[in-house]
Amino acid sequence: MASIDLNSDVGESFGNWTMGDDAAIFRSVSSANIACGFHAGDPSTIARTCRDAVAAGISIGAHVGYRDLAGFGRRFLDCSPTELADDVLYQLGALEGIARAAGGRISYVKPHGALYNTIVTHQVQAQAVVDAVKAFGGDLPMLLLPGSVALAAAEAAGLRGVAEAFADRAYNPDGTLVSRREPGAVLHDEDAVAANMVRLATEGTIVARDGSTIKTSAESICLHGDTAGAVSMAAAVRRKLEAAGVDIRSFV
Amino acid sequence: MASIDLNSDVGESFGNWTMGDDAAIFRSVSSANIACGFHAGDPSTIARTCRDAVAAGISIGAHVGYRDLAGFGRRFLDCSPTELADDVLYQLGALEGIARAAGGRISYVKPHGALYNTIVTHQVQAQAVVDAVKAFGGDLPMLLLPGSVALAAAEAAGLRGVAEAFADRAYNPDGTLVSRREPGAVLHDEDAVAANMVRLATEGTIVARDGSTIKTSAESICLHGDTAGAVSMAAAVRRKLEAAGVDIRSFV
Amino acid sequence: MASIDLNSDVGESFGNWTMGDDAAIFRSVSSANIACGFHAGDPSTIARTCRDAVAAGISIGAHVGYRDLAGFGRRFLDCSPTELADDVLYQLGALEGIARAAGGRISYVKPHGALYNTIVTHQVQAQAVVDAVKAFGGDLPMLLLPGSVALAAAEAAGLRGVAEAFADRAYNPDGTLVSRREPGAVLHDEDAVAANMVRLATEGTIVARDGSTIKTSAESICLHGDTAGAVSMAAAVRRKLEAAGVDIRSFV
Amino acid sequence: MASIDLNSDVGESFGNWTMGDDAAIFRSVSSANIACGFHAGDPSTIARTCRDAVAAGISIGAHVGYRDLAGFGRRFLDCSPTELADDVLYQLGALEGIARAAGGRISYVKPHGALYNTIVTHQVQAQAVVDAVKAFGGDLPMLLLPGSVALAAAEAAGLRGVAEAFADRAYNPDGTLVSRREPGAVLHDEDAVAANMVRLATEGTIVARDGSTIKTSAESICLHGDTAGAVSMAAAVRRKLEAAGVDIRSFV
Repeated sequence: MASIDLNSDVGESFGNWTMGDDAAIFRSVSSANIACGFHAGDPSTIARTCRDAVAAGISIGAHVGYRDLAGFGRRFLDCSPTELADDVLYQLGALEGIARAAGGRISYVKPHGALYNTIVTHQVQAQAVVDAVKAFGGDLPMLLLPGSVALAAAEAAGLRGVAEAFADRAYNPDGTLVSRREPGAVLHDEDAVAANMVRLATEGTIVARDGSTIKTSAESICLHGDTAGAVSMAAAVRRKLEAAGVDIRSFV
Repeated sequence: MASIDLNSDVGESFGNWTMGDDAAIFRSVSSANIACGFHAGDPSTIARTCRDAVAAGISIGAHVGYRDLAGFGRRFLDCSPTELADDVLYQLGALEGIARAAGGRISYVKPHGALYNTIVTHQVQAQAVVDAVKAFGGDLPMLLLPGSVALAAAEAAGLRGVAEAFADRAYNPDGTLVSRREPGAVLHDEDAVAANMVRLATEGTIVARDGSTIKTSAESICLHGDTAGAVSMAAAVRRKLEAAGVDIRSFV
Repeated sequence: MASIDLNSDVGESFGNWTMGDDAAIFRSVSSANIACGFHAGDPSTIARTCRDAVAAGISIGAHVGYRDLAGFGRRFLDCSPTELADDVLYQLGALEGIARAAGGRISYVKPHGALYNTIVTHQVQAQAVVDAVKAFGGDLPMLLLPGSVALAAAEAAGLRGVAEAFADRAYNPDGTLVSRREPGAVLHDEDAVAANMVRLATEGTIVARDGSTIKTSAESICLHGDTAGAVSMAAAVRRKLEAAGVDIRSFV
Repeated sequence: MASIDLNSDVGESFGNWTMGDDAAIFRSVSSANIACGFHAGDPSTIARTCRDAVAAGISIGAHVGYRDLAGFGRRFLDCSPTELADDVLYQLGALEGIARAAGGRISYVKPHGALYNTIVTHQVQAQAVVDAVKAFGGDLPMLLLPGSVALAAAEAAGLRGVAEAFADRAYNPDGTLVSRREPGAVLHDEDAVAANMVRLATEGTIVARDGSTIKTSAESICLHGDTAGAVSMAAAVRRKLEAAGVDIRSFV
């Protein structure tokens, strides 16, 4: 029986500011990337989100990011590898402390935003993140972009690198994402997206923008929850996967 | 053989700003109250401090504080008990993650600055801190002011409350500290201070400002390291204690 | 012809987080309390809000607050008068710089959240805020609670103190607000609220919770914009005031 | 009579953390680059520094930086031009408000740290900073690296670009700075440094690392104050310039 993981970013509120509809997203996903306080997520938001994840039986992932609340972790920050590794370790510890108190624990690590994108190609920062995950202990799996230097660095360090696909993004025939600067990069047709994700889960392939079929190693599908449309698409993807007999379950 | 713990605040640098002479203080104390990032202590400073504490065989304490870098945690912040408990839990987790990576672990909790002073009398915030320590797990001892509601709350929750004395502060005959607003509140005579601390360690008494002798339950002596004079006094206290045959060792 | 000012808090988004529906509120008010970056409001949000206020012909007020993003300025912070005065001065300058670049300028000052509430009774902090407004220059009017020590301090310093009423709050017969801890403290009946505000604008009276009539010196009415209901009530109050022939205009 | 400006970074303390010896530096310089709160400088530090600058008759420069306290503004931050321009404008306004209250005003702008270095070559960020200075009004001069795209952008916008030289840095024969990664990049011989700066002030030349003489357009010399050695060198440079009959005065 085919199975796949569905992951989404949650716990991104901060103090009086709310972000996304976590309750709705929790009905769709099997893995929750929980903000750790550096790009989003105050401690009480993190605590509430951990309790909700534990209650729903959803895996807790550490969504570590740059120290940049004003930029939501979406701006490259040229920190040193030592600073980055220590910042990541600090975030992992903080989330673990709160997750344990909620009856859970961190099951994997997924870098956020600009950090995620940077370590697709930035060897030094990729290694720093991997070093922090190793130093934290427990050899947590890392959820990353297929083909990224981060994924290679994780595996070279003896960590499990888990590749993910993006439900609402168009793919080039070579398996890379169509740049957001190009028209059609972001997909809005729920049926087409869901059908593509069923294909991924059952056949291990994605249909690229030009109609060609590409093989993928993705074990998880990233869904978004920051807009009403995104929440609806997440639900549609889950519904179609279940209808196709795919088992939605965490990769850990 | 008499024994006593010596504790001091360390790891209070932040980024490019340096605070105190931690290396010198590490030669005097048996317990290190390490800042956890909310009032001071960036992750790399915390990591370096944990490694130094582990190398020196010094106990690591979580020096948790209000979220107030600009005020160094020295200003009362009227946060809710939920916010405070989650903030403390977050800091405990963060420090534990870094301490573990350094080969150590948190051995006790000491609130910092305005939080320490507030929970001498503020029942709700005292309980919130205790709740966080309980939620963190491991029932860590708490280093607190004798007679504080925080110490009572810790013990009521089944935690070990460890009372501390302040080497460089004058005491009233009733065992309370002379207010810093009064002249003579802070002591500068190294010999007199050291002699008083030897008395504390060997007889369990302190000589109050008026010359009367007061009984104390203190198991630890707080030393300061933020000025050259403070570092010198810390060394003097340790020297005199050792000369008097007192064993300097952590209370945990 | 009767006239009244309507004010509301705007510019309270921060980075990727959105707060309130400022565009809708700008259709209802004559005065905009713009966050200055310490409790909310990143520089780009402030800039956009200033441009919108200038375009709509709405007075710009400096909504100064405690340095507490995580608490949204809603938690008392026991800072020293020097710290508070300098923090306020910094915020005034920052907003003025942005307002000037947008073709406007600060026309008044309204403290935010816990600072607003604190200086109803806290003489030292009230004086610190007044000192900052004086030091800033231009003798800006201050929008405050009637009867507050801040209003008295402002007037004693030669500033114009402008009293405000709260549209959606119930009043005690003595003119004080019904505490939020009591049932019925917050009003939800748009028609009743609007009728009460028309009475305020035309007769200078408010009907208290027990039906008694109280005299008020309020020259401005505070509306909220942080929920859909609040935005709707703001529009209703404006509509009814206009229908009653009241001129909605800034007090400056 | 030859004249030259001496500038240095000041006001870089933050809350309880002290940086540099501003009092000593104020005895050497004619221009003070005052931190504006984003990389360093809390409002009370800024206020004290402005008062000291006014009292000493030293020009106040706005030392604007990236929003990065943890990194002291020394890490490139990939913010958008709008974010950067608004961040700079906010800092300019904040400093101006405090400077005015101290009886002074901003006389020039000098970007700090990573921002300074980035806009040597980064056209978009350079333009954003220039746009902010223009939007602030008053067409403040900008203190920048000779040959930088920022200096060209400033002049293209009608601002006065003022080139500076670095007293304690070795120069390549082409007038660029020797990279800090190379040995000998930072100079420590007070006499040699001072002699070179006298040459700059009197002849408009600097002796490069290889002994060749290079022409410079520098109207200001940057001194450092963050170490005891730096403070001593600053004093030596001033002494030698005065002994050579050079008038030390601000370029504005």
